[in-house]
Amino acid sequence: MKTRGVRHLLSMADLDRDAIEQLLNLTESFAEVSERSIPKVPALRGKTLAWLFYEDSTRTRLSFETAAKRLSADTMNFSVSSSSVNKGESLRDTVETLSAMGIDGIVVRHGSAGVPQQITQWTEASVINAGDGSHQHPTQSLLDLYTARSHFGDLDGRRITIVGDIRHSRVARSNVLGFATMGATVTLVAPPSLLPPSLEGWPVEVEHDLDAVLESTDICYLLRMQLERQKQAVVPSLREFHHEYGLTVARANRLPTDSLIMHPGPMNRGVEISGEVADRPQSVVTEQVANGVSVRMAVLFLLLGSGLDVVDDRRVAA
Amino acid sequence: MKTRGVRHLLSMADLDRDAIEQLLNLTESFAEVSERSIPKVPALRGKTLAWLFYEDSTRTRLSFETAAKRLSADTMNFSVSSSSVNKGESLRDTVETLSAMGIDGIVVRHGSAGVPQQITQWTEASVINAGDGSHQHPTQSLLDLYTARSHFGDLDGRRITIVGDIRHSRVARSNVLGFATMGATVTLVAPPSLLPPSLEGWPVEVEHDLDAVLESTDICYLLRMQLERQKQAVVPSLREFHHEYGLTVARANRLPTDSLIMHPGPMNRGVEISGEVADRPQSVVTEQVANGVSVRMAVLFLLLGSGLDVVDDRRVAA
Amino acid sequence: MKTRGVRHLLSMADLDRDAIEQLLNLTESFAEVSERSIPKVPALRGKTLAWLFYEDSTRTRLSFETAAKRLSADTMNFSVSSSSVNKGESLRDTVETLSAMGIDGIVVRHGSAGVPQQITQWTEASVINAGDGSHQHPTQSLLDLYTARSHFGDLDGRRITIVGDIRHSRVARSNVLGFATMGATVTLVAPPSLLPPSLEGWPVEVEHDLDAVLESTDICYLLRMQLERQKQAVVPSLREFHHEYGLTVARANRLPTDSLIMHPGPMNRGVEISGEVADRPQSVVTEQVANGVSVRMAVLFLLLGSGLDVVDDRRVAA
Repeated sequence: MKTRGVRHLLSMADLDRDAIEQLLNLTESFAEVSERSIPKVPALRGKTLAWLFYEDSTRTRLSFETAAKRLSADTMNFSVSSSSVNKGESLRDTVETLSAMGIDGIVVRHGSAGVPQQITQWTEASVINAGDGSHQHPTQSLLDLYTARSHFGDLDGRRITIVGDIRHSRVARSNVLGFATMGATVTLVAPPSLLPPSLEGWPVEVEHDLDAVLESTDICYLLRMQLERQKQAVVPSLREFHHEYGLTVARANRLPTDSLIMHPGPMNRGVEISGEVADRPQSVVTEQVANGVSVRMAVLFLLLGSGLDVVDDRRVAA
Repeated sequence: MKTRGVRHLLSMADLDRDAIEQLLNLTESFAEVSERSIPKVPALRGKTLAWLFYEDSTRTRLSFETAAKRLSADTMNFSVSSSSVNKGESLRDTVETLSAMGIDGIVVRHGSAGVPQQITQWTEASVINAGDGSHQHPTQSLLDLYTARSHFGDLDGRRITIVGDIRHSRVARSNVLGFATMGATVTLVAPPSLLPPSLEGWPVEVEHDLDAVLESTDICYLLRMQLERQKQAVVPSLREFHHEYGLTVARANRLPTDSLIMHPGPMNRGVEISGEVADRPQSVVTEQVANGVSVRMAVLFLLLGSGLDVVDDRRVAA
Repeated sequence: MKTRGVRHLLSMADLDRDAIEQLLNLTESFAEVSERSIPKVPALRGKTLAWLFYEDSTRTRLSFETAAKRLSADTMNFSVSSSSVNKGESLRDTVETLSAMGIDGIVVRHGSAGVPQQITQWTEASVINAGDGSHQHPTQSLLDLYTARSHFGDLDGRRITIVGDIRHSRVARSNVLGFATMGATVTLVAPPSLLPPSLEGWPVEVEHDLDAVLESTDICYLLRMQLERQKQAVVPSLREFHHEYGLTVARANRLPTDSLIMHPGPMNRGVEISGEVADRPQSVVTEQVANGVSVRMAVLFLLLGSGLDVVDDRRVAA
């Protein structure tokens, strides 16, 4: 697959290894822009992006907004609670309205899987999935891949262990695909109640005992316990979960010294990760956040700008 | 009336035919700007607009915001729910505060008729009515006139039929004035419970049977059933309303082939309009939305910029 | 103390007389910018500010936002209600996230005293206190000092009378320090229930009878009765409070003719001030609001720009 002509970013399933590598290389150029004293390029001047967030978000919305402003795009906050959604307006009419106003890109977060895909049928604008239900969150995966690559150079053969509430996690689903596509081996560690009903077709290994895999882990990727998506108790208690699956100090000490600890945030300190471990240098959570801005600059530039095939450093730096 | 020196836009009653035509001509220049790959002009650089929305809005707020950004104005969102209004601040103090900060324009939506007019007494800023109760919504009317004119060239003698919840509709009140001023004949179609208590002085005809006027209609203008403003049941049921006054497929088929179907949005599909009819090419709802941005650019430029009499294409295009 | 190298603005206690004077002089340059037809300078182009408001605010947030836009900074609104705070994210993680995204300044309002100070430990960004509990509100004090100085030239020996709900007022705490540092004499007037439990160390005089000090007052500074912070009834009734401590017409008539009436807003007309008095020319409430923008431009420029010691008018005007 080429990224030329790509118009939407919906799922990591749509990106092959070449496409991901092109995106990560472009991210590198934008990371350099972010380091400047005036971290701003006119790449998307006159383009308008709308945030269509039907679920709470801090990190993702602010990260996209920072990215958009560094690219000189205009942004519109479509706050769902104060909008005509209260008047019974359908999602379709909302999207067609945004589209008719000449919005160039729609960044959407929604509680239901598949909504971003559906939206593409109603608009000429680029649609970027910022999280749909328990389905996908592709820019999170891209920033995780970028962060991992910046430490390891190459992800081929690397062993990533994803721990915790996999069942409800769109981050897990995107990262399983992303890391596997880049040649890494993915192991899922969770109690059966926090695994999806079926893992058929997932390019993963499954392990129920975190202690059994720590020493052979290059990246220990912890998920947030998503209490708000759990309709019934799936773990006996958070205390017990921490005891069995949390990255405690003792467990963190058994990870290889050059391994990374990653988390998509926001962390529940004391649940999936101990506070002390969260603050170790091995934990690259704030690096992930910083890289998130550069990855989203790359994604926005690719989808709304002149397209990836005409990008070179001189253009990005213009 | 000249538009020279006009500082506020409160009601269509304030605009005579010359003023409307000047505004629509100016809109044409901005529609051309909106078509550019970088749809942005520096016309209002350094000017600041505040949105003072005491009622929910998607379309209108986003449309004004898009217009403001295309003119390079800065915008302030005054979100009523998170503001000092909760501390008991009076509307007057809020307006005087905005004014003291050097805000150049205030775009106001409020549930009570007359609030925008009242606000003009407390500020040097331009005040633009974005909807006050069931009173007026002048920019909606201007965008409807622009859309109609772009199809028919001239509105003299055109027959516009406005259907539905006229009683609660500020859009109807603005459009009755707007279309009549431009020489069109306006017919209102609604059950008595959805008409205002008195129509004295309204330049309209009234008809209770939609089927009787379809064939002589150039523009069939449907209003949203405003369930949130109806304090008591005014129609036996939505199903029955749809049967009697909705634009069904059968009715739409009886409209002249070159007629237009308009709706201010958001539509209640299956109530005032059938979903199938809403998606016909004759239905210009998304065109209305697109024109809304250009009309609001014209209004903002006229009120906050150098004024209409010094506008020519070279300036707009600068 | 020098302002060179200052990175945060947390409390008036951190500013000595030189620092305040430098800030007020810088404010004068920005007041001149605010008077221009395009009141915008590129001083903070490419810098990003985040508003972290855990309490309602109109004036302060809009004032900072206006200031930021006049300096060409980008701004991020972190709306607490629609954010990951609902997911149990800690304040620390929120701040570290903002910081990792490369935010240059965080303007924080919080219900608890000391939060801005705490935040400085978690970020490289400049932290500006926009009000913390009943503790401090330094930019309010700076704008009050600027307003007073613009009328009196010099505050040495001036007599300022602060009246009302001092117990719950961060404005009072900041202004006691600010005015005393500038050489003024501060008198507090309030019933015992509206005074702090201890005034030890406060550079003030206390008076319970407003009528006793009116004739020797240069600035009569009224505080808003903060009904939302009062956990129990501290005054018998608002009517009685107005009778005893409100600035009625009769009392205002006894103030020296060249004295000023100030209020941080929003005013409760009929409680701490009569409506008629609020609208007198002596009342400089809207002047305070206008000066607030210039003061905040100066603060933002000082903390995020090149620093005060390299400022001259040519740079500010660039």
